[in-house]
Amino acid sequence: MAYKVTPWEVSGDIDYGKIVKEFGLGVISDHLMKRIEKHTKELHPLLRRGVFFAHRDLNWILDEYEKGHHFFLYTGRGPSGHTHLGHILPWIFTQWLQEKFNADLWFQMTDDEKFLFNDRLDLEQTRKLAYENALDVMALGFDEKKTKIFLDTEYAKTLYPQALKVAKRLTFSTAKAAFGFTNESNVGEIFFTSIQAVPAFLPSVLKGKNIPCLIPHAVDQDPHFRVARDILPKLGYYKPASIQCTMLPGLKGGGKMSASEESSAIYTTDSPDVAKKKIMSAFTGGRDSVKEQREKGANYSICPIYHYYRLLFMPDDKELASLERECRGGSILCGECKERLSKRVAAFLSDHQHKREKAKAHIEKFMIRD
Amino acid sequence: MAYKVTPWEVSGDIDYGKIVKEFGLGVISDHLMKRIEKHTKELHPLLRRGVFFAHRDLNWILDEYEKGHHFFLYTGRGPSGHTHLGHILPWIFTQWLQEKFNADLWFQMTDDEKFLFNDRLDLEQTRKLAYENALDVMALGFDEKKTKIFLDTEYAKTLYPQALKVAKRLTFSTAKAAFGFTNESNVGEIFFTSIQAVPAFLPSVLKGKNIPCLIPHAVDQDPHFRVARDILPKLGYYKPASIQCTMLPGLKGGGKMSASEESSAIYTTDSPDVAKKKIMSAFTGGRDSVKEQREKGANYSICPIYHYYRLLFMPDDKELASLERECRGGSILCGECKERLSKRVAAFLSDHQHKREKAKAHIEKFMIRD
Repeated sequence: MAYKVTPWEVSGDIDYGKIVKEFGLGVISDHLMKRIEKHTKELHPLLRRGVFFAHRDLNWILDEYEKGHHFFLYTGRGPSGHTHLGHILPWIFTQWLQEKFNADLWFQMTDDEKFLFNDRLDLEQTRKLAYENALDVMALGFDEKKTKIFLDTEYAKTLYPQALKVAKRLTFSTAKAAFGFTNESNVGEIFFTSIQAVPAFLPSVLKGKNIPCLIPHAVDQDPHFRVARDILPKLGYYKPASIQCTMLPGLKGGGKMSASEESSAIYTTDSPDVAKKKIMSAFTGGRDSVKEQREKGANYSICPIYHYYRLLFMPDDKELASLERECRGGSILCGECKERLSKRVAAFLSDHQHKREKAKAHIEKFMIRD
Repeated sequence: MAYKVTPWEVSGDIDYGKIVKEFGLGVISDHLMKRIEKHTKELHPLLRRGVFFAHRDLNWILDEYEKGHHFFLYTGRGPSGHTHLGHILPWIFTQWLQEKFNADLWFQMTDDEKFLFNDRLDLEQTRKLAYENALDVMALGFDEKKTKIFLDTEYAKTLYPQALKVAKRLTFSTAKAAFGFTNESNVGEIFFTSIQAVPAFLPSVLKGKNIPCLIPHAVDQDPHFRVARDILPKLGYYKPASIQCTMLPGLKGGGKMSASEESSAIYTTDSPDVAKKKIMSAFTGGRDSVKEQREKGANYSICPIYHYYRLLFMPDDKELASLERECRGGSILCGECKERLSKRVAAFLSDHQHKREKAKAHIEKFMIRD
């Protein structure tokens, strides 16, 4: 089945093996995982389970780290709607990296991008959404002393001159090849990747010396950083390294959770009841009848409910293996499995929403602007 | 002979009559001049002599003005080098308009543009040149209470979000048609006109109500404002009006003074001696021999020396008519005519440089930044 993975569209049954080849990514091997573990003492479930499955130059990042040349982290969010569980996946992992490597984090809110690429959003809306999303970032436990969150429009005096340096090196034909622009693309869309490239070298500009950059992100953003990796060395900066994850599937199956299709995603602002309703009506890998499922078992590999456990709600490997057995063997039915997930999601949401509320009083400790 | 007039290239023998038709400009008729004179009590030589020869919606600007709905002025400078006499031509006229109509002026220094379009300039150079150029603007006598000068990179937090609104409405194919971009154009060049459009409506944004905008500029900048006129009404703002002048010819004849060909231009920072040398070695409309010139007279219409008198250094119409007669009749030779011009240029430079020096202490009264 055909699929599409670009920064602005993810659809179809994604073949991550093919993406690795097409994009020219490195795979996270057992050897590389051990190398990480040497420093972190443990492996995050998202690494162990292959959710963060690909990278660029991660060995180089560790080489530098081992020489005492520490990296900073850069990730971000396109504020086109409220935060859903798919968005926080790479952020959870980024927070873990921050803690384990004691790394600074630059978190970019691309309110400009979401305005440019989205006909139904104005700049005031993307600005407000960025501040809403920032609360979710903060709720995940980032270190206020080592984390800077900024909106592109509010940090433009700093970002724009640096973006010009990238833009000057990027022709329309290269941008077109990377992103699939057409003659009908607007000139802001065409320019935008120059802004997304900036945080990958801004700390080096501000410190006046080169600092390695590691970008944890979902694989659909790779084209931006491919472009940045081509251009930054021409400006005298390091190529940014990256560690890339798969997308969290939508509750309706396939692709990724979409911020525009509300019922396919669980938002951090959903009440436990709303989340439960979405889960209970989700697509699963179950059979047509109870009888058939009891006899033949279900297919968890295509089941979004299973993937929610695997990616976010069942960090214990033994417990997960046991669930897999139950599912495959037909001893658990989808309804019960959904009920159990709902409880875990409800607990997560209640805790997250509490932290999110508390974050409101501290937001200025995280935000930077010109 | 072929000619080319774009914001980035002016060459050949320019046929301003053709440009009026091609660009779809209005001509400044006697009727329109009288309408202006009603308010200004006198006509500036640059208007009387047809140097400001074309416009867009100038009648509308006067309609609004007569209803008590005052306009603001917007003009600018691309800081690719030191200021030469060709640059100050529209600024002198803008200062006159400011005085006569008591109008605010927004003066944009497009240091971003000159960086993007010029391989030999970095951002630090364009920034420094912008500040040098600003001294020349100030030396012309603009009202410090009614004039704001800004660099695009230093005012980006204000300009960039507004530019995004323009960019979202401008497709690559429209930008390509207006400016002749190719696949090899860089993505900053393609985006840039969005930034140049902003000062035409920024005062309306800041005041929260629509204010008419009049842009005095050399005709080569018209493509930018054609694009702005298409898009601004879609954002709820007035189309900017304009009043447009011809280019000051280069001392080597043809085209316009070029900031990159030093000997073809007199810079405001040239010493009187340097200026005199440039004038004395300039192209003229003279004959091959003194004898022939005494007999047949010279052709002042193609002579840059004559145009310097007409555009800047001989505001008295009777004096100019007398010079024309002398030239046509062969009673003045080019050497003498150049000597006379050198004296006037020396007087201007000495006065301007004095004012320019004094401006250094007051620059912060004019500059705005985020």
